[in-house]
Amino acid sequence: MSTYPIDERNKVKRIPKRGHYDKKTVYEILDAAFLCHLGFTHHDQPFVIPTSYGREGDKIYLHGATTSRMMINLEKGLPVCLTVTHLDGLVLARSAFHHSMNYRSVACFGTAYKIEGEEKLHALKVISDQILKDRWEESRQPLPKELKATTVLCFTIDQASAKIRTGPPGDDKPDYALPIWAGVVPCTQVWGTPEADPLLADGIEMGKSVKALMK
Amino acid sequence: MSTYPIDERNKVKRIPKRGHYDKKTVYEILDAAFLCHLGFTHHDQPFVIPTSYGREGDKIYLHGATTSRMMINLEKGLPVCLTVTHLDGLVLARSAFHHSMNYRSVACFGTAYKIEGEEKLHALKVISDQILKDRWEESRQPLPKELKATTVLCFTIDQASAKIRTGPPGDDKPDYALPIWAGVVPCTQVWGTPEADPLLADGIEMGKSVKALMK
Repeated sequence: MSTYPIDERNKVKRIPKRGHYDKKTVYEILDAAFLCHLGFTHHDQPFVIPTSYGREGDKIYLHGATTSRMMINLEKGLPVCLTVTHLDGLVLARSAFHHSMNYRSVACFGTAYKIEGEEKLHALKVISDQILKDRWEESRQPLPKELKATTVLCFTIDQASAKIRTGPPGDDKPDYALPIWAGVVPCTQVWGTPEADPLLADGIEMGKSVKALMK
Repeated sequence: MSTYPIDERNKVKRIPKRGHYDKKTVYEILDAAFLCHLGFTHHDQPFVIPTSYGREGDKIYLHGATTSRMMINLEKGLPVCLTVTHLDGLVLARSAFHHSMNYRSVACFGTAYKIEGEEKLHALKVISDQILKDRWEESRQPLPKELKATTVLCFTIDQASAKIRTGPPGDDKPDYALPIWAGVVPCTQVWGTPEADPLLADGIEMGKSVKALMK
């Protein structure tokens, strides 16, 4: 699989060995999440909004209410930066200076535009699948008025960079002799026990989608 | 405690009842995290970078390598948007349309500037405390050359808004009769068992800071 073009915009300058530009790595990090932080600029003011997304090839789909400020701004065709971060652990070094985190992150760059019709419905399924596979098929499908109330945006990833840190702390040589505990405290996101809607009618079983989360 | 001024920049327009502007709510959400997504604009291009932070009153401290692009850009005094998001659960409705997430998020606005001297060292402790209380005192303190290699920025939260969703899905009335499971799947971030540095000398116990994570 190919690699994204590298220039000033996406080059990892600080600790370059942590930078990756191949699509395989970028896709893996994007596909392991469904919540991103989306950045755009409006009247010289940056905004960063948490939102869900779906990836298909180099296309990223985003959705929101037609009335949402983010959607109204972005459908005009603004440059965006979409960032996804997995925190994998705290890296505790002997020196305060060498403390770090283990993480996998991706920043993607592109220009969002609004999509309609069949592609819009398809994009909503892609977003739903990214959040929870099989849930789309289990759900009551969108009505025309619901589609009308929803804006769906797409952007092609023009450029991206991934940044990954793994492994134990790296202290300065003399500090290894210090009597200070050092290591990594792993961090993960876990699903709890599903809580049925208090208004759920009796005898309705959880779908395949929810059961898969409990494995 | 007081409330942030509200205007076009920080007003929660979409589902206004989820918006909060009081400092107590904003601080609670900020204090429950240490990783933010920081947005700034450079040559009309938005960038969103995951980074750690520390809060003290209305001041947010950020740090990074002197050579980091983010630091070089921000120390010039750029407007920033700092966003923190806690994902608390997937909200599974009967209709695809009413699917949602439970979350607590904050977006803070301000203008970063570089700090030096005593405030710089203090800020580094504030950031360290936010990540892991007591770790600063356990660690080997920064050397002059390490401080020189680190840029520390500060910004005052001029405005902020919090957005919170809790509770079960809200479906359209007729959909409650559908035989589709609905509810919330809670989501939390958990710490795993600390992994000692393979180079850790024998007989060094974990500090108070690490032990507190394991409770």
